[in-house]
Amino acid sequence: MGLVNSRGVAYKPAKDVDLSPTSSEFYLTANVKAPRMVGIVVKIFAWVLEMRILGKLLLYVLKANNLIYKLIGNAEIEESPVFVPSHPVEEKENEEVKYIGVALSETEQVQEAVSCLPSWSDREVDSLNPSFHRWTIMDYSRAYRSRKITPLTVAERFIAAVSESSKPPLNMSFFINYNVEDILKQAAESTNRYEHGQPLSVLDGVPIAVKDEIDCLPYPTTGGTSWLHKLRPCTSDASCIQYLRLCGALIVGKTNMHELGIGTSGINPYHGSTRNPYNTSRICGGSSSGSAAVVAAGLCPAALGVDGGGSVRIPASLCGVVGLKPTFGRVPHSGVLPLNWTVGMVGILAGTIEDAFIVYAAISSKIPSHQNATLPKLCFPLLNSSRPIPSVTMAKYGEWFNDCSDDIRICCSNALDKLQKHHGWKTVEVTIPEIEVMRLAHYSTIASECSTSLSSYLEKLDSSQLGWDARVALAVYGSFGSKEYIKAQKIRNRQMYFHRKILAHADVIVSPTTGVRVNLDTIEV
Amino acid sequence: MGLVNSRGVAYKPAKDVDLSPTSSEFYLTANVKAPRMVGIVVKIFAWVLEMRILGKLLLYVLKANNLIYKLIGNAEIEESPVFVPSHPVEEKENEEVKYIGVALSETEQVQEAVSCLPSWSDREVDSLNPSFHRWTIMDYSRAYRSRKITPLTVAERFIAAVSESSKPPLNMSFFINYNVEDILKQAAESTNRYEHGQPLSVLDGVPIAVKDEIDCLPYPTTGGTSWLHKLRPCTSDASCIQYLRLCGALIVGKTNMHELGIGTSGINPYHGSTRNPYNTSRICGGSSSGSAAVVAAGLCPAALGVDGGGSVRIPASLCGVVGLKPTFGRVPHSGVLPLNWTVGMVGILAGTIEDAFIVYAAISSKIPSHQNATLPKLCFPLLNSSRPIPSVTMAKYGEWFNDCSDDIRICCSNALDKLQKHHGWKTVEVTIPEIEVMRLAHYSTIASECSTSLSSYLEKLDSSQLGWDARVALAVYGSFGSKEYIKAQKIRNRQMYFHRKILAHADVIVSPTTGVRVNLDTIEV
Repeated sequence: MGLVNSRGVAYKPAKDVDLSPTSSEFYLTANVKAPRMVGIVVKIFAWVLEMRILGKLLLYVLKANNLIYKLIGNAEIEESPVFVPSHPVEEKENEEVKYIGVALSETEQVQEAVSCLPSWSDREVDSLNPSFHRWTIMDYSRAYRSRKITPLTVAERFIAAVSESSKPPLNMSFFINYNVEDILKQAAESTNRYEHGQPLSVLDGVPIAVKDEIDCLPYPTTGGTSWLHKLRPCTSDASCIQYLRLCGALIVGKTNMHELGIGTSGINPYHGSTRNPYNTSRICGGSSSGSAAVVAAGLCPAALGVDGGGSVRIPASLCGVVGLKPTFGRVPHSGVLPLNWTVGMVGILAGTIEDAFIVYAAISSKIPSHQNATLPKLCFPLLNSSRPIPSVTMAKYGEWFNDCSDDIRICCSNALDKLQKHHGWKTVEVTIPEIEVMRLAHYSTIASECSTSLSSYLEKLDSSQLGWDARVALAVYGSFGSKEYIKAQKIRNRQMYFHRKILAHADVIVSPTTGVRVNLDTIEV
Repeated sequence: MGLVNSRGVAYKPAKDVDLSPTSSEFYLTANVKAPRMVGIVVKIFAWVLEMRILGKLLLYVLKANNLIYKLIGNAEIEESPVFVPSHPVEEKENEEVKYIGVALSETEQVQEAVSCLPSWSDREVDSLNPSFHRWTIMDYSRAYRSRKITPLTVAERFIAAVSESSKPPLNMSFFINYNVEDILKQAAESTNRYEHGQPLSVLDGVPIAVKDEIDCLPYPTTGGTSWLHKLRPCTSDASCIQYLRLCGALIVGKTNMHELGIGTSGINPYHGSTRNPYNTSRICGGSSSGSAAVVAAGLCPAALGVDGGGSVRIPASLCGVVGLKPTFGRVPHSGVLPLNWTVGMVGILAGTIEDAFIVYAAISSKIPSHQNATLPKLCFPLLNSSRPIPSVTMAKYGEWFNDCSDDIRICCSNALDKLQKHHGWKTVEVTIPEIEVMRLAHYSTIASECSTSLSSYLEKLDSSQLGWDARVALAVYGSFGSKEYIKAQKIRNRQMYFHRKILAHADVIVSPTTGVRVNLDTIEV
């Protein structure tokens, strides 16, 4: 079974449990504590149970006296819940996409993605900004291949830039950790591959930053805390990091994030507040704050984030970069802090859509990473064809689209107008019902899953080791009953129905990502 | 959105919601009640929230003040949760089974099942007991085809027998409802089909009883209560009933059950205690009590039950009949009272394994009935071949197998010995870890799902309309937090792992179904 302590059981991983007849697993005889009651006694018992306060107290005593707390509620269990939130997938044949077979390796997937891109992304090497500020992945790749610059030079300049940005007057707080020696070692290996004419992929030597929620050696995984890495040591790379390494990517460090990802400001009491490169008096959003900021600052063409409730998309929108949260199950989740099970996914922040696409090709899997997840076929958009850019139908829910500040509304409306005028894209008006209900269902879900996930760590923790906003959030997170959690999953099913129905007649749903702007100055920590 | 009452929203079905731009669905602006706090105030807020009693009170006020109760916790939502508890399926090629294609109808599936059965189940029509007591499905089918008896005669005698068993001195309480007119009408139609030489399948005219948890016209679906059918009218047949009707089955009424299925004695305060036909002073188990008892009494060769935590298997074992709980998703669940979502399934009670198999063929679907459920291919055992009965490997966990009363242990051990001696079946000893943990995880799951499912009905109900044991159970059922529910799902995932690993080397896991016997007399209601 596992280690039994005063509060609960710490189960050993299922795969390590001996199922042979000589197993040391002990058989626990059922200890049914249902009192044997007849007649008037059972009636009194029911009356008391149904009382508002006394009933709750009696239940508390009954349950405390029961093994359910030790064996279930307070237990440490490594395995995921038995369910996944996937939904039936209808495959539509589409000439404008290329279906990717199961047999391809990560580097082959990246090659396929590049072959789908239009050639106009081929900027001339000589025209490139020599400081490699805001270079795209293809810019790096061509510059390396043409020997205009080496990964080692890029790494050295990158380290200098990060060092400078960390100090006054900038205090950008992009990174929680970056290891100069590790970065230079990777860069030297990449440089060597280019010297031998054997780069692994277009990502070889390209600097990519990683949110500190994803396991990535040689770094601890802090999750933005001052303590989590001490309780949960990082012992190997997450799957998505392994894939990036197979493609030769230069992993440049662990980016700053909102503590435990349970906030969206990116203000971190231990690792500093990540500032917005466009205006250092403003926040850059969160929780993947550092990942968005390093891309916006032009230090990396792309970075990995994790998005449970906007944690990639919010900082992407506040920093003016591309934010992609892939379909559940598409990117392997192993080696990511299990802060929830059904809403958080590894996502991508990138300077351009093309770069997000290339990184997506590297880390996405054709086989669902979660057991039972049903996934559509992995397919890449064919953007290099001689056909005109395909016409896209955009579904817009006016009430929701316009529920933002004036400047954002005007900016987003102008963007739609441009797509309509220059590319002939259509807008269809729709109603997406129950948006606020969906927000609350999401909150109940992530709150329940996050507090469950962290429960065994939090028990060992002095709450003074948590930031104040995390303490408030976690107190509320832990307050949901199973009824709220299960009903939230019913609401999600309704929304899947609504979304499927809308997307049967539209290609995308458009809305502003973040409706407000917040100054860093107005938030005191 | 739906009807908003003082407690919560009653959402209309997703499919009825208008998604057009002129929809009457209103847009609810997010009303984020997170108080804006800085400095010392947020610290005091966190301190209070973390206090054991005051914190719970503050949370209660904060949440009550929030829309989360009205829009989620107290809402009425028809849709299922977004998740299903299915698990990855490994298909093993097996020569001893016949794979059933998607294209077959229910009657063709029944025909396939019959063709898989050995011919020794063909008893001579003339040797049959003329009272059709304990006839098998094939007995009925052959007797009808040979014109030895008609469905109408069977129906008439069935009605007389049920009428007699309902009165003193027997007071068997098999049925909650049976409609003489409806039974005779079906029987007349079936008789007519035989007269024209056109029976629909071997089930044509065969009496089958249905647990009162499954929608089946012209009956209300009481769920064993005195009130549920008033709040939830039955308007059409459940899918499994539709399938049985397509095969010509004679639906003979709605069997008694434990109130709401939340107990396993079968003692019902409104519809009587179903008695065990083998000893009327003993219970027959539950919650599908009537379905097991009518089969044991020999009135029907088979009956439908629903099993969430033993509700088919327990009464089957106490009544000495076959009880089958199929794989999740195999039998369509639509039209069954949604008392839970991840553990309850339509099951079969039958006098013989062959009859359970034939009914299973009629009601099982090749396409998963729950969205996303992953199902193995539908396959039927080839029992009619010239090969010897295949050797079966039985996994046995001694500690668990022996955790029952002496007489049951001896009986079950003798059964294993016989299988070993006469058929050469092998027993392998294994350890199934954490069985008691699994029981508690199951309890947390069914309790959480059941109380969520019933919450909107229970709010409208005066608790005096519930039996005392249901009142106690429901008070406890509603007390689980989302943490206990989610951790229970993690325990289930561990068990799926253990079971897959054991079943990689064994065909079945053997154990007594019910370890104790209970007298009806010793339980007072």
